[in-house]
Amino acid sequence: MKTRAAIAWEAGKPLSIEEVDLEGPREGEVLVEVKATGLCHTDKYTLSGADPEGIFPSILGHEGAGIVVDVGPGVKSLRKGDHVIPLYTPECRECDYCLSRKTNLCQKIRVTQGRGQMPDGTSRFSCNGKPIHHYMGTSTFANHTVVPEIALAKIREDAPFDKVCYIGCGVTTGLGAVLFTAKVEAGANVVVFGLGGIGLNVIQGARMVGADMIVGVDINPEREAMARRFGMTHFVNPKEVQGDLVGHLVELTKGGADYSFECVGNTTLMRQALECCHKGWGVSTIIGVAAAGQEISTRPFQLVTGRRWIGSAFGGARGRTDVPKIVDWYMDGKINIDDLITHTMPLERINEGFDLMTRGESIRGVVIY
Amino acid sequence: MKTRAAIAWEAGKPLSIEEVDLEGPREGEVLVEVKATGLCHTDKYTLSGADPEGIFPSILGHEGAGIVVDVGPGVKSLRKGDHVIPLYTPECRECDYCLSRKTNLCQKIRVTQGRGQMPDGTSRFSCNGKPIHHYMGTSTFANHTVVPEIALAKIREDAPFDKVCYIGCGVTTGLGAVLFTAKVEAGANVVVFGLGGIGLNVIQGARMVGADMIVGVDINPEREAMARRFGMTHFVNPKEVQGDLVGHLVELTKGGADYSFECVGNTTLMRQALECCHKGWGVSTIIGVAAAGQEISTRPFQLVTGRRWIGSAFGGARGRTDVPKIVDWYMDGKINIDDLITHTMPLERINEGFDLMTRGESIRGVVIY
Repeated sequence: MKTRAAIAWEAGKPLSIEEVDLEGPREGEVLVEVKATGLCHTDKYTLSGADPEGIFPSILGHEGAGIVVDVGPGVKSLRKGDHVIPLYTPECRECDYCLSRKTNLCQKIRVTQGRGQMPDGTSRFSCNGKPIHHYMGTSTFANHTVVPEIALAKIREDAPFDKVCYIGCGVTTGLGAVLFTAKVEAGANVVVFGLGGIGLNVIQGARMVGADMIVGVDINPEREAMARRFGMTHFVNPKEVQGDLVGHLVELTKGGADYSFECVGNTTLMRQALECCHKGWGVSTIIGVAAAGQEISTRPFQLVTGRRWIGSAFGGARGRTDVPKIVDWYMDGKINIDDLITHTMPLERINEGFDLMTRGESIRGVVIY
Repeated sequence: MKTRAAIAWEAGKPLSIEEVDLEGPREGEVLVEVKATGLCHTDKYTLSGADPEGIFPSILGHEGAGIVVDVGPGVKSLRKGDHVIPLYTPECRECDYCLSRKTNLCQKIRVTQGRGQMPDGTSRFSCNGKPIHHYMGTSTFANHTVVPEIALAKIREDAPFDKVCYIGCGVTTGLGAVLFTAKVEAGANVVVFGLGGIGLNVIQGARMVGADMIVGVDINPEREAMARRFGMTHFVNPKEVQGDLVGHLVELTKGGADYSFECVGNTTLMRQALECCHKGWGVSTIIGVAAAGQEISTRPFQLVTGRRWIGSAFGGARGRTDVPKIVDWYMDGKINIDDLITHTMPLERINEGFDLMTRGESIRGVVIY
């Protein structure tokens, strides 16, 4: 079939809106009509060429929602008409990782996904006979895409695509880090480094589970109001702190954070996030992705005295199991997504959407097909 | 009263055996006749002068066992004749740390303990009128010592002092890191860096909880036989590994360690211990104490992909609660302490004992009063 897509022909160039050829779903695959997709910094990072694992030409996009149009042989859990969110972290429920009960990092199709291919090692996309790579197993910057069955979460049909698409990455990454990775409990004191989209979702996750003090740390004072609306109780601007930021945060939280989250990808902040944790039990979760080659450091004494340093990918969420729950929480009003989506646009204006993604100008832009 | 003690008059000098004056127990304090005490590397480290927190003159020793001789006013949980193990990590059961249910690092008397004082800010020891500092709240290199009630574990009376004294530090530190900090489960693959006394106790802890593969890593091949006796299933000598040690360990464990333990205090090994852990869930526990100022580093990707970096002090054990259990496990034959104690000596020969504590020559020397 033909569909319209934004092709990333090469690094550093704008996306090109073109008609592409899309093969139908093979064994275990599903054809999805994408109804909406968020623009995430990870797409921008790959498009920029800075991502060492970026592959071109490809169809980017990994934060979508849509409707099943057709299913390939052997697909049992989905059928035409189902509403779905594509999962860049699949959940096969049969690999060692899925069966471990300890991680959400399903490895079933990791190798081919990393190569921009479907599990059988080929691509469904082409343009004028030239194959185009898939991206993160999802390629949602296309009006139709083919996705493995294990990489689709089935969601309720009354959920609006242009909002719940954000659950495909940002919402789950922030909320899940609180709920599934760190497992923050009621009454905890939480410190959040970075009040962008991920940070705001960490904040509303902390509020959802009943945290007491929710401290936001950001050098941009314009982010304070929005963060307070999502549940932040205290704002700290490092530029306005006299002396040591870590000491200030430990004092503010009366001994240190029970849980801290780094949502920026800055290794200096990752260290501060660890060291502002409470002696004896503070858990610091790295969510942000640091630039290639950068390292985190601390004195081992920080760990020997009880702080724990961990990380979270896709919020520790098992996609097919947890994403539908998060959709329910949104529909029940337990979390706010609407205010995080600041711009919507048609596919034709996707490059303008990426141009808006400069610091502070946007939380999330969404393409509506 | 008068008692005999080994005084550390100054850093870098041998201990001096002398008759010292010991005041009786004050409110909440207990007079203990020390029957046996282990010689630990931490005592040697402080005596060397390398410990920035070392205080002189003092009476070192923190791995003892003995009998209650007298109790001060208000002491309720102990009485004359009780057998006890002094705890350098006390358990008051009423500070925020004890009540957190998340840490064993009771802070009730931490400040005075760090100053070499009893909780009221004074010392019970003196020599020719000159006050001598306490050490780690225990000062077991004296035939009699005064210890706060909250820093004494009451143990069964049939346990031999010259063996269970080792539970006062080394046994609990290694065993507890497996049981109470990392919480290793049956079937796990474990990698242990360093096969000294702590490493051997980690190994027997891993065996006790039913670990499958227990890999020991040490550059000294003479340590292999003993480690195998304690439960090690595979030995890796880094000097004999072609290429990358981490890669070798990941391959050997078929994907990485479920749990790793650093028992040396070397920051390079700490990094290797983390990075040889299994993607998705591997937990690396730092037990060894690094030299002052040294730092650990890694790429944050290691944590974001599911490895967890934690530390353990006194094995995560709550002293009054867990130490008596460990004594029971020893008496029941679940753990082996006898083979770890390689030398015994009277107090007069304690300096010879420290001289023996060079690499590979000794697991643990014990002074018997």
